[in-house]
Amino acid sequence: MKNVLNRQFVLAARPDGNAKISDFKLVEQALPALAEGEVLLRNTLISLDPYQRNLMGNAASELPPIDIGQVMPGPTVAVIAASRHAGFTVGEHVVSWSGWQEHAVSNGDGLQKIDAGAAPLSAALGVLGHTGLTAWVGVNKFLDAKPGGTFVVTAAAGSVGSIAAQLARLQGHRVVGIAGGAAKVRYLKEELGLHDAVDYKAPDFAAQLARALPDGLDTLFDNVGGDMFEALMPHFNMKAQIVICGTIAQYGFPGAPDGPNRLPELLKAFLYRFIVIRGFALPDHFASMPDFLADVAPLVAEGKIQYREDFVDGFEHIPEAFLRLFDGRHHGKLLVRLATSGQAAS
Amino acid sequence: MKNVLNRQFVLAARPDGNAKISDFKLVEQALPALAEGEVLLRNTLISLDPYQRNLMGNAASELPPIDIGQVMPGPTVAVIAASRHAGFTVGEHVVSWSGWQEHAVSNGDGLQKIDAGAAPLSAALGVLGHTGLTAWVGVNKFLDAKPGGTFVVTAAAGSVGSIAAQLARLQGHRVVGIAGGAAKVRYLKEELGLHDAVDYKAPDFAAQLARALPDGLDTLFDNVGGDMFEALMPHFNMKAQIVICGTIAQYGFPGAPDGPNRLPELLKAFLYRFIVIRGFALPDHFASMPDFLADVAPLVAEGKIQYREDFVDGFEHIPEAFLRLFDGRHHGKLLVRLATSGQAAS
Repeated sequence: MKNVLNRQFVLAARPDGNAKISDFKLVEQALPALAEGEVLLRNTLISLDPYQRNLMGNAASELPPIDIGQVMPGPTVAVIAASRHAGFTVGEHVVSWSGWQEHAVSNGDGLQKIDAGAAPLSAALGVLGHTGLTAWVGVNKFLDAKPGGTFVVTAAAGSVGSIAAQLARLQGHRVVGIAGGAAKVRYLKEELGLHDAVDYKAPDFAAQLARALPDGLDTLFDNVGGDMFEALMPHFNMKAQIVICGTIAQYGFPGAPDGPNRLPELLKAFLYRFIVIRGFALPDHFASMPDFLADVAPLVAEGKIQYREDFVDGFEHIPEAFLRLFDGRHHGKLLVRLATSGQAAS
Repeated sequence: MKNVLNRQFVLAARPDGNAKISDFKLVEQALPALAEGEVLLRNTLISLDPYQRNLMGNAASELPPIDIGQVMPGPTVAVIAASRHAGFTVGEHVVSWSGWQEHAVSNGDGLQKIDAGAAPLSAALGVLGHTGLTAWVGVNKFLDAKPGGTFVVTAAAGSVGSIAAQLARLQGHRVVGIAGGAAKVRYLKEELGLHDAVDYKAPDFAAQLARALPDGLDTLFDNVGGDMFEALMPHFNMKAQIVICGTIAQYGFPGAPDGPNRLPELLKAFLYRFIVIRGFALPDHFASMPDFLADVAPLVAEGKIQYREDFVDGFEHIPEAFLRLFDGRHHGKLLVRLATSGQAAS
């Protein structure tokens, strides 16, 4: 157990605007020996998510940032590599929140065992994990529009958006997804079965959007904010329902951008169109995990909900993979797969 | 019945920005003789309300404007001056929507009889009329914050705001009113019994606001929008509930003002503070009038809800009185009282 060398990516600098490679630093540390009641985790999959940018500081976030030198936080799939904890045996798979590092020592708190036979392990970080739960909470707890209306999802090819869009489709809404690039648009229509999809990177985005929303927008599951939200505002129908699940376009850009000031227009839309809008975030809803799994796991098993994973191999590639979240070069749930050959020394 | 000369204020021009006297024109018309089933209304009180600016066009409204030459619309208290309608007898008092004119001919549709013994007739246009109903709907149907939190009302000395603030106070909230000028602030604290009040015209408004909201804002009943809303945004607490009942600061100012653009900041507040915001307007809720009256009329009769009326005498003064709504020179429900000596010729 001694002398396990652990590689970590720690925060090296607070970025201005988008994160860049030099904001992260690879460090090596010898792990301490396990104490009684502890387990050694070896991460096999690391989840990369946009909110991690917010934790780096200088972000348009209201959450406190992590310290410089701290390991980048986030969920992982890990295997129990050694155990002095009665509740965990070597070889078991768990979801942990140990972040961007190869190993971690845990006292077991917050570890969630994965049934490795039910679905691929990676699903525990995506469709059957925190991203799927986020989509499910937004669609089921905060939106109760009548089926048959138009339901728009932004970042619809993304990990949360793709699940939200399919849940909405299964509930009988006419679902329009917004994503970047022809390949993703095709994916939304052909593989996820959405009714229409719009490419926000296309020069005629506004015209495409208008064509896809001939009857306006009754429900919006927004992951993007910023210019995307502003482009959608004219399409809000009377009594439109909106959830703000993310504002990825704004991450890294605190403060108020140059004008014009579109806020009065939104207040006016609220007033005259009786719109309701709300924000939510996952930590308030972790207790819904069992209900979520009971609902969604069968849909995934039956193939009624598709999901796509974008794997990057190699711990050392985490920073460059992370940057892909912000220019749309990833497709689906972005995961870094750690070499399985390098068993933890013990 | 013939040859009753009727004076009307019609829309003469669509204003840019705030309305001005020359946007209205006084015209005289001979009324037609009553047909079977019709009544002649003589207006005795005419209600002036901010939303009437929106009906003039070139407004930051999404409602269609009236035509040039059309009588300015709005609610009135009228007496039945002549009747060929079995349901109405001469001398009865009604609320009508006949607008800025001395007389009107009606087939009875939409007329609402007033019990002249229950309260002063003027109350039927204010605290026990559409303005009171607006306040009651906002507070009771769309806000369900726990008592004890801080409840902010903008334009709190106004006709809607003053009722909303008192309903919130009676429900056990800590109510902070915002109004313009020392006299109104004193009125809010001393006569309406609000816990605190802030003068938005004071040079140290922001500091006053911060002092009045040491624990932030849990609930907001907003009648103002614009800069006032932006000043309140930093004070929104986690899970704050907000209703947009009016945007009087924006009326007459369509389009997006110069930046910075505060919309991204609001989306961020939604996301990180789990805020819910919604707009509503009265026409959707007229059916609640009986429930509202059952609840509020006793509170008014017992003196638990105070109301203030600002009377202007003389039909010809309507336009100048109307303009006072937009610079805060009125105080309370603004009503124009028509000369009672000038009985309708018949």
